Parts: sequence; structure tokens; C-alpha cells
Amino acid sequence: MNVAPTAAAARGSLPPLRVDGRLGRFRDRLDEEGLDAAVIVEPSNVRWLAGFTGSNGTVVVLGSGETLLVTDSRYVEQAPAQLADAGCTHEVEVVVARRAADAVADRLAAAERLGLEDSIAWREQIRWSEAVDAATVPLTEAVEELRAVKDSAELARIQAAAGIADEALAAAEPMLRPGVSEAQVQQALDDAIRAAGSSGPAYDTIVASGPNSALPHARPTERRLQAGDLVIVDVGATVDGYRSDMTRTFIVGDSREGASGEQAAAMVELVGRSQSAGVEAVRPGIEAGDVDAACRAVIEEAGLGEAFVHGTGHGVGLDIHELPRVASGSSAVLAPGNVLTVEPGVYLPGVGGARVEDLLVVTDDGCRRITRYPKTPPV
Amino acid sequence: MNVAPTAAAARGSLPPLRVDGRLGRFRDRLDEEGLDAAVIVEPSNVRWLAGFTGSNGTVVVLGSGETLLVTDSRYVEQAPAQLADAGCTHEVEVVVARRAADAVADRLAAAERLGLEDSIAWREQIRWSEAVDAATVPLTEAVEELRAVKDSAELARIQAAAGIADEALAAAEPMLRPGVSEAQVQQALDDAIRAAGSSGPAYDTIVASGPNSALPHARPTERRLQAGDLVIVDVGATVDGYRSDMTRTFIVGDSREGASGEQAAAMVELVGRSQSAGVEAVRPGIEAGDVDAACRAVIEEAGLGEAFVHGTGHGVGLDIHELPRVASGSSAVLAPGNVLTVEPGVYLPGVGGARVEDLLVVTDDGCRRITRYPKTPPV
Repeated sequence: MNVAPTAAAARGSLPPLRVDGRLGRFRDRLDEEGLDAAVIVEPSNVRWLAGFTGSNGTVVVLGSGETLLVTDSRYVEQAPAQLADAGCTHEVEVVVARRAADAVADRLAAAERLGLEDSIAWREQIRWSEAVDAATVPLTEAVEELRAVKDSAELARIQAAAGIADEALAAAEPMLRPGVSEAQVQQALDDAIRAAGSSGPAYDTIVASGPNSALPHARPTERRLQAGDLVIVDVGATVDGYRSDMTRTFIVGDSREGASGEQAAAMVELVGRSQSAGVEAVRPGIEAGDVDAACRAVIEEAGLGEAFVHGTGHGVGLDIHELPRVASGSSAVLAPGNVLTVEPGVYLPGVGGARVEDLLVVTDDGCRRITRYPKTPPV
Repeated sequence: MNVAPTAAAARGSLPPLRVDGRLGRFRDRLDEEGLDAAVIVEPSNVRWLAGFTGSNGTVVVLGSGETLLVTDSRYVEQAPAQLADAGCTHEVEVVVARRAADAVADRLAAAERLGLEDSIAWREQIRWSEAVDAATVPLTEAVEELRAVKDSAELARIQAAAGIADEALAAAEPMLRPGVSEAQVQQALDDAIRAAGSSGPAYDTIVASGPNSALPHARPTERRLQAGDLVIVDVGATVDGYRSDMTRTFIVGDSREGASGEQAAAMVELVGRSQSAGVEAVRPGIEAGDVDAACRAVIEEAGLGEAFVHGTGHGVGLDIHELPRVASGSSAVLAPGNVLTVEPGVYLPGVGGARVEDLLVVTDDGCRRITRYPKTPPV
């Protein structure tokens, strides 16, 4: 398979990742919620707001308009360098301390309502509430909602990651023949991803064959492929922290003979049609739940509604699962720059499963596929 | 190297893991703290209390003397089976529900003070405090303190894991020669660990050579070993969830010629003496901080105190880092059944580092080494 431009070429021309304007948008959100200041500790949120990737970083947004990045002495060189790369040295001050709450409490003396991410450990919330006079107020997915809209530099990384996964799958697909184990295929995919310059798979690569394909979250085993098996391959790569996500379902030997061969082919065809219907539905202004409904209608019409046991998709970026959620009843309204998966599947215990997944970016008038690997059968 | 009994043989005769008496001891702890009930969510604590290994499990200890294990529908078969294996079916009831707080609130109607692990996400604590009338009280390392004393079945797993790592290192040590990369050595170690029947390395295996060995938490790279390099190998295995932990430092080609060779050999010798002094100090009744002091004294005497940049050790069990902490000022009093590492190191930026680590179990009158790989030079 030829992916143009090649992943390697695409990586060479990636625009710089900058955090311009993000802290300002986050401050607007704090104003809306009546918060004077906020503490952000989720690593992906810290990275998105300030460009810092260390394992210990806390962003403290002060009421004064200043912002602090608190980290420990291991990152005394890395932190200022990454802030400079991200273009926020002028607005973020590095504070080196073991415990953020104790170190910056005096800078928060004027705050009355301090937002804390509600994913923080309770003991950390207790520490903050003891260190400051302000009331601590839970922040739910505040930065995550901003992260759901990607800028062009982020999209370029996600596209590059998808290109690497496309190439890895092209290299591994010839292995999908009788006698090769799921684990061997996974190893080949992961090796190809790393060889292409990715820091690694975006998540634990799935290769699930035969009866294992009926498990939506199967882990690769030593099971060897057999002719006529359904094989679900779910694979993504990572570029500069940004991830891709794609699934294809194959039939070993492309055998559609006999009753089980016909059933397998029908499952792949059905899921492919469902997935196309979902992709067709993606456009700005609709609710994510409508995308789920579009996929589900096709599968329900075929009488397999109960075999579609998971939601239709999720956002992808610095995390493999992020906003927007694409599930039944999701009221998130899609906007240009959202990156999401559409990945319906059907799973018949003891028989097998099929799932087809593309990664999409919402455009001004619809969507564009980020994952480009051909589907079998083409749909 | 011959490790007798072999890891494989040792695994065949492992006594069953049972949770007998653990819930009773935990209830005693709750009584001491004046708590009517408690919620435990940390996976290793849930596993230790009830034998359940699913990714979603909450143990709710009720004031009535009953205990619930709340999990979701994915584990409707696994949960009762694991409770039975662990021998606690008679005292633990399985509740299948999406959200533990909502599902069991009515069972907590009589509770006034409900202990919640303080490592729980703040949003979960908020959910519990909204669902129940009781006051939520933070529990700090309550189960962890009980877990610090291992029973014989746990010790047998840790010993088996250490035996597997010993054998893996014996298989990989001949690779420590010029031209072989750190990543290749790591791969060989990890492959050997899995081939011996371990579910995998106990943590990310470290192979750090030359200047990389000066980084205490180095990740293996494509750097190729050179004659005279210091090489730190930090490797452990996992058996039934229980981990081992061991570090050895080698000199490539065992070259001690020239000024740098002499310096490298002197570093390994110093750290070995420090580690022996720490092991000598381990016995019931002393404070963990005294073990740290014993190691540190040897290195300070050699004028390299500032190059020993981390604590001396930590407990090991279901988690790779657990209680007791072995660091300067640790007041934890060692008790028979504690399993801990003693792992002093010195790190000279730009030059290299050396670390020697054994895993020990505290006995009635001293300690016993769990890791048995010979040291180079023998100390």
C-alpha cells in the first residue's frame, strides 16, 4: 500500500506545537464559573496548557493573571526549555518545589474560590484545602473540553501518527495467514510503528482472531490464525504525544466459503455499512449521540443490535480516550477541529466479532478521514 | 549459574493464596480509628483483601460485619470464582452494579463515619459523600500497612519471581559485551522472564550503560555497550501478581585498566560495601531509617554522600513500591514478614553510576536474601 505523503516525509515538515491562547481561553472558562484561580494536575492537561511533559507538573492559574508551573528539581532544566518551545515563557513562571500546595499557597492569598480538577486524588484536595484560605471547587473536564478542538499543529501530529499505523498495517497484513499467532502479528505491528520513528503504539495493539474476536477488548494471545477466522486488528501510533486509532477486520485466507465463511463476510460487510453511515453523519452542529444512532440503526435493522455492545466512538488526542464521547445520548455538539473515532462492532460469543474504525476530523462542512488504510471488503 | 530449586520447580509447589483473617484485621483497624464502615478501591488492596483481580472492584466493609465486593457485569463470573479461590465466599457478598456509591448507599444507612481511601479520586469522594449520610473520613495507607507483612504463600510467590529474574539475568549476562545495545539486553531479559512463565517484568527493566548509568531512572536506549562501561541492570519478575526487584552493576569486559577502569571498579566496590552494611542492619525492631543510615554512612565516608541521590529502598509485594519506606528518617519499625529492598547507589553525571540491590525478607532474628544472583565483584 502506498500512503502519500509517507509518514516519514510528513513528520519532517510538522509545524511547531505552540500553546498560544490556551491559557487565555482557560481563564475565560474560570471567569464563567466564578473561580479566582485553578490548579491543573492531569499530565495531558498540563502538557496542553504549558507544553511541559515531565511526570510531576502542576499548573496554577492565579487570579492576578499570572500562571505558575510547579515541578521538582529533576525538571529544573527541562521545564523552562519546554515552556520556551511552547511559546509561553512570557506568561508562565517555573517554581521548583516538592509540594505545590505548600509552595504556592501565599500566591493564592487573595483567592476565594479555587478550582481543582476533580480527578485529583482526594488526599491532594485535602492538602490544597489545608494550605489555602480559598474554598476548593471541583473542576470537571474543564481543560478537556478545550482540548477537544485541535489546532493545525496537533492535527498534523495525529495525521502523522495515523500514517505510521497505516504503514505498519500494510507491512503486517501479509502475516494474516494460517499458523501465525496473534502475538506475532502484534509484535510486527509494534516493531513497524517504532521503526517508523513513533515513540510507540498509541495503546495496547489488539490482534483478536476467531473466537477471541468476540471480545471487544481482547489482548493478543499465542493463538494461531486459521483459514476463515475473523481477525480484528486495532492499531495506532504516537507522534509528539498525539495518538491515532484505527481498526480493520480481516478474514484469514479471505475465505467466504461454507456457512461460517458467509457469516463472517456478512458481519464485516454489515459493520462496514454501519461505519459508513456513522461517518456520513459527522458534521459540525450535530450531537455526538446522533453519530451513534446512525451506526446503531444499520446494525439494529439487521437484527444484531444486541451484539453491538459498546459506544460508537471517542475523541483522540494526547489521550487515547478523550472528549467528545460518541455514545447513545451523548449531547456534545460536534465542532470543527474535533477528532473522533467511529467504530461500530458486532460480537457473537463463541463465533467471532467484527469492528471497523476510522479516525475523523470534523471540518467546516462535514468531516475528513485521518486513517486511510483500505477496508476489506472495500466499503 | 545454578539456582536451586529452579524457578520452574518452585512455581509448581506454590501454596494457595488465601485471604484468611485479613478482613478481620482490617476491621480491627477501623475500630481503632472510630470508623463504622470503609470503602477500598485501590486494586492491590482489593486483591489483597478479597482475592479479586478485575479492573473495577470496590470492597465495602459494613458496620454490620458484612463485606461487599462491588463490580460490574463484566466480572459476574470471575468475581465469585476468585472469592472462592481466596477462601472468603462466606464473608464477602458480590454486588454487580455500575456505580458502587449508588448501589450500596442503603446498606450504609446506619454508618456515621465512613472511611474512604485518600488515594481515591476527589470526584469519587464527592459521589460517596452525596450518596451516604455518613461523614467521609480519609483513610491513609490503612490496608497498605497490613500488606507490609507477608504470609508464607505471598513470600513463596516473591521468591519464585526472584528466582525467575535470577535465571533471566544468568541468561542475559553473557550479552554484556561491546557492541550490544541496552535495548537488546532488556529485550533478552524480558523474553527470558516471560519464557519462564512469569506474566512479565515487575517494572520497566533498566539497562543503563556508560554515561546513562548516571541516571537513577534511565530507560534502555539504542546505545551500544563499550569496554569499560559501567552497566546497571535492574530487573524483576511477577508471579501471581507478586513482584521481585534486584539490581546488579557490571563493568563491560570486566576492564579495570586505566584511570576510568579503576574509578568504575571503585564505585562498584563502594556500593557493594554500602549495600552489605544495609543488609547487616536489617532486623525486627529497628527503624527503616536506620537501614538507610547504615548504607549512607559507608558512602559518606568515601566522600560521595552527595552522589547517593535517592532513598535506600522500599517494600515490595503486589506493588513494586509499597510499605515500608526505607529512607532517611523513616520511622517504620521493621517486623518479621516485611519484604524490602536495600539498594544504595552512586551517580556521577557524565561518568556513570553504580547500584546494588537485593530483596530481603525480615525474619525473627535478622533477614534473609530473596534475590540470589552473585555480585561482581563478590561482596
